[in-house]
Amino acid sequence: MRIAVDAMGGDNAPEAVVRGSILARDEYDVSIILSGKENEIKKILESSTSDFSNIEILNAEEVITNEDKPVMALRRKKDSSLVKALNAVKNKEADAIVSAGSTGALLGGATLIIGRINGIERPALGALIPNMNGGVALLIDSGANVDSKPEFLYDFAIMGDIYLKKAMNIDAPRIALANIGAEKTKGDKLTVETYDLLENTALPLNFIGNIEAREILQGKADIIVCDGFVGNMILKTLEGTVLELMKGLKKELMSTTRTKIGGALIKPALYGFKNKFDYSEHGGAPILGVKETVIKAHGSSDSKALKNAIRQAKICYENKLNDLIEESIMRR
Amino acid sequence: MRIAVDAMGGDNAPEAVVRGSILARDEYDVSIILSGKENEIKKILESSTSDFSNIEILNAEEVITNEDKPVMALRRKKDSSLVKALNAVKNKEADAIVSAGSTGALLGGATLIIGRINGIERPALGALIPNMNGGVALLIDSGANVDSKPEFLYDFAIMGDIYLKKAMNIDAPRIALANIGAEKTKGDKLTVETYDLLENTALPLNFIGNIEAREILQGKADIIVCDGFVGNMILKTLEGTVLELMKGLKKELMSTTRTKIGGALIKPALYGFKNKFDYSEHGGAPILGVKETVIKAHGSSDSKALKNAIRQAKICYENKLNDLIEESIMRR
Repeated sequence: MRIAVDAMGGDNAPEAVVRGSILARDEYDVSIILSGKENEIKKILESSTSDFSNIEILNAEEVITNEDKPVMALRRKKDSSLVKALNAVKNKEADAIVSAGSTGALLGGATLIIGRINGIERPALGALIPNMNGGVALLIDSGANVDSKPEFLYDFAIMGDIYLKKAMNIDAPRIALANIGAEKTKGDKLTVETYDLLENTALPLNFIGNIEAREILQGKADIIVCDGFVGNMILKTLEGTVLELMKGLKKELMSTTRTKIGGALIKPALYGFKNKFDYSEHGGAPILGVKETVIKAHGSSDSKALKNAIRQAKICYENKLNDLIEESIMRR
Repeated sequence: MRIAVDAMGGDNAPEAVVRGSILARDEYDVSIILSGKENEIKKILESSTSDFSNIEILNAEEVITNEDKPVMALRRKKDSSLVKALNAVKNKEADAIVSAGSTGALLGGATLIIGRINGIERPALGALIPNMNGGVALLIDSGANVDSKPEFLYDFAIMGDIYLKKAMNIDAPRIALANIGAEKTKGDKLTVETYDLLENTALPLNFIGNIEAREILQGKADIIVCDGFVGNMILKTLEGTVLELMKGLKKELMSTTRTKIGGALIKPALYGFKNKFDYSEHGGAPILGVKETVIKAHGSSDSKALKNAIRQAKICYENKLNDLIEESIMRR
């Protein structure tokens, strides 16, 4: 299997991306196509390994950044690492793409360059949220679509279900609808109508009803379905709260000699705790509903996170996730 | 000033409510009308004080709980502590109402029994979110309305502005729109159109643009405007994350002898930290847009939180908040 990797995407690119790609090649028996500035990539490669088998460089002189407007950048920066990697997948020179760069550009490119699966109106971005029990939940859509219709959310549930079954080996994933109350009648027009669709589906979906935002970290659901505006609010509130609390806690621990000693004693425990929320363990976020395998690695990915994102791409591809999604969508 | 207090509302009612009411009477020179089961209230009163001046009991034999359907309960439980307190305000026997009971029932009753301010289509629930700098932000709407129109959000901003200026003494409150990106063009139909209204207002609103959910705890805005579905998601994700992190941290600290000793050393620092997120300091959440002063105290209010909620009611009433809201709404 050949995986196109956007070597220039992410906070730690190209260094962490190239090193993560080497790790993945060694561990997972995949071929890597590194898309990006050849000179820079070569230098990192040569300083990291003496085995260059199954690694290829696709030279691209431009980089799409988070500051670029996604659609415009895709159109104008034809010689960017992302556009070249996307085209490699489109032209069947690669079987999947992994990028830790701009989410908007990857989403846009996945839809505009690779294209949607038949029957899917809106591809969605799934984000893996760790919970306190050591498990994860897939939040879908976590930010690709706003002003969703109930039919979109229904498709998100179907795609998420296949993803968890095939890519994460969860038998009958519990699907919940993010809502402001537990009862069926609660919520806005979108959630009330989506509830109906999920409750009356002919597909074997394990729909468990509504989940309130307060319960998200409790591990009650494997898939949390919502509009992308709502998903973004949930995800960013969660990330911001964890970040600010950890920062605040650190500050408190540095405030007196007493707390400094206490802090030193609990440091290993704190690290264990922090690891529960470690993105690098969980690899990347799948963009579901497009014709090929597309994995968005976290922007701050280190080489380990990148390696795990590549593993995810491999699993999705080998399990023919997109074929299964297309089949389910035909039957819905 | 006379304040009707729903003595049976909240997790710690009637005990904490009655005691908080006594504290408020002693501190703020207000008369309290305690609505609820006379026998129970009397017992707590007699065991707490020997001074019964400016405290009156309004007997009500029924209680509306969180399990009741709000509108149905308001209609059927005419002899409930909440309905009687609301009617006391409606009939000008009280100047304000404070309740720590069912949010839905208080919201419904505020609109159905007390009534909306002229020109306001949707009253809103404001929630005070503490931030890491020791300040707070008003999240409005935090859950009263779903499927909002841009005009509703515009009114939420106007009401929040007056509330912060008059009830919290903030000069030119920074108003931000909860959104998925910083740029004006980001968001769903609702936020894009609301942005336009807020940017082009003729009122002296200090609109600072969009705020992302990740920044909410950073103290960048004084008022965060959003639809109630979105506000509920933000608020509950935040509460759930703080709660689960604190639980998880506690567990880690109890895991070994070493962490137990460390935990003991940092305990005071942890408490100081936790206090930043202490609701009891900030009193209650105002329901804005109804004709009289209505304050929702947190469900888990202790006597101190209840006392602070009563103080808030007093401040709103004495500053003629509702008159100011009506004036602004006429000019918008």
